[in-house]
Amino acid sequence: MHIKSPSPNGSLLKIAVEELTKQGCSVTVSDLYAMQFEPRATRNDIVGHLHNSEAFNYGVETWEAYKRGCLSKDLVEEQKKVREADLLIFQFPLFWFNMPAILKGWMDRVLVQGFAYDFSKIYDGGLLQDKLSLFSFTTGVSQEIYSKEGIGGDIRYVLWPMQHGIMHFCGVKVLEPHICYAPENVSEEKRKEMLAAWTQRLKTLWKEEPINCSPEWYFK
Amino acid sequence: MHIKSPSPNGSLLKIAVEELTKQGCSVTVSDLYAMQFEPRATRNDIVGHLHNSEAFNYGVETWEAYKRGCLSKDLVEEQKKVREADLLIFQFPLFWFNMPAILKGWMDRVLVQGFAYDFSKIYDGGLLQDKLSLFSFTTGVSQEIYSKEGIGGDIRYVLWPMQHGIMHFCGVKVLEPHICYAPENVSEEKRKEMLAAWTQRLKTLWKEEPINCSPEWYFK
Repeated sequence: MHIKSPSPNGSLLKIAVEELTKQGCSVTVSDLYAMQFEPRATRNDIVGHLHNSEAFNYGVETWEAYKRGCLSKDLVEEQKKVREADLLIFQFPLFWFNMPAILKGWMDRVLVQGFAYDFSKIYDGGLLQDKLSLFSFTTGVSQEIYSKEGIGGDIRYVLWPMQHGIMHFCGVKVLEPHICYAPENVSEEKRKEMLAAWTQRLKTLWKEEPINCSPEWYFK
Repeated sequence: MHIKSPSPNGSLLKIAVEELTKQGCSVTVSDLYAMQFEPRATRNDIVGHLHNSEAFNYGVETWEAYKRGCLSKDLVEEQKKVREADLLIFQFPLFWFNMPAILKGWMDRVLVQGFAYDFSKIYDGGLLQDKLSLFSFTTGVSQEIYSKEGIGGDIRYVLWPMQHGIMHFCGVKVLEPHICYAPENVSEEKRKEMLAAWTQRLKTLWKEEPINCSPEWYFK
């Protein structure tokens, strides 16, 4: 029998589930690939008739559908999970300076107007103000690449659209990101250290203060 | 009979096709929604056996499959279009400070190692050095929001992962982005001006110099 080796992200996910469960937290996992989560924002996200079928506008239609209770089932389920959560941890491998498309699709489709934000209810006034978020990801290349002087630039530059443009926009507070650099290219010992560091951080996670999610944090 | 109104992005696309065709260019369009393009990076992108089925690594597997000519048909077709192109124009509505998931999926799946970059063949040494790119997008909110002082920050901050992290990484040169701010919220007259400005720009596009795609362009 072959046992498949868990990917670094699989291991990090497993650690978070185990450690937080041990703390008494109720942990819900959305394993997007296993769920075959649909990343494409289309008309299918609205059950039944459209608000304006002459000129389809995804933002308007999902907002109207949210109010009518007519969003597709997969979105309703994800929104329920978000509504019940105190903390959202996003675990993923960095693909092209950003999250993989399947996770971007989760953001595009789940965080609809009316649910995550509304007219003037954005940023500190966003509708998900009672929540924390944490971006935990792995990179393909080493930390030196991601520095102000490195060709990849400061890693914080890639966090701006995710942390500020999505989470902060919805009012969600942002904890320091957790970054494992190039886990596929380091020794087994170093990889174990990375996993141990994540376990260690999770132990005191609830005592952490959110970052000040303003341009200064990212670009100064 | 009802005629559906074209979306702003649909209109911008149509203008580019018409104007560039008029110039004698051969224009190929990948309309990702119409193609129902798959954004999810999975094992299905590799036809036949895996290089290492014990520990699936998408980057390694697609690189190996590219070398063996075993990438899935949709990827081979998109790579052919890229290979034959002098200029790649990406037309999309900005979703959450980034491209929509379906387009991110195109980046994740099409630009594989061996095709778009290789070991030390990255950035100015990337494999797609003979090409130009242009990000043309619409926003939901006005230009004032996207300034250094605005809550959205400088619009260039969101361009870093796309232009530098993807295009520049592959060696593709980057033309100035083309941004239409909040076309859904302006008058019909203003919208017509936006479309006319795009037509106008396209007339002299081939005379433009690429931007200097370094941190200074984005963050200074």
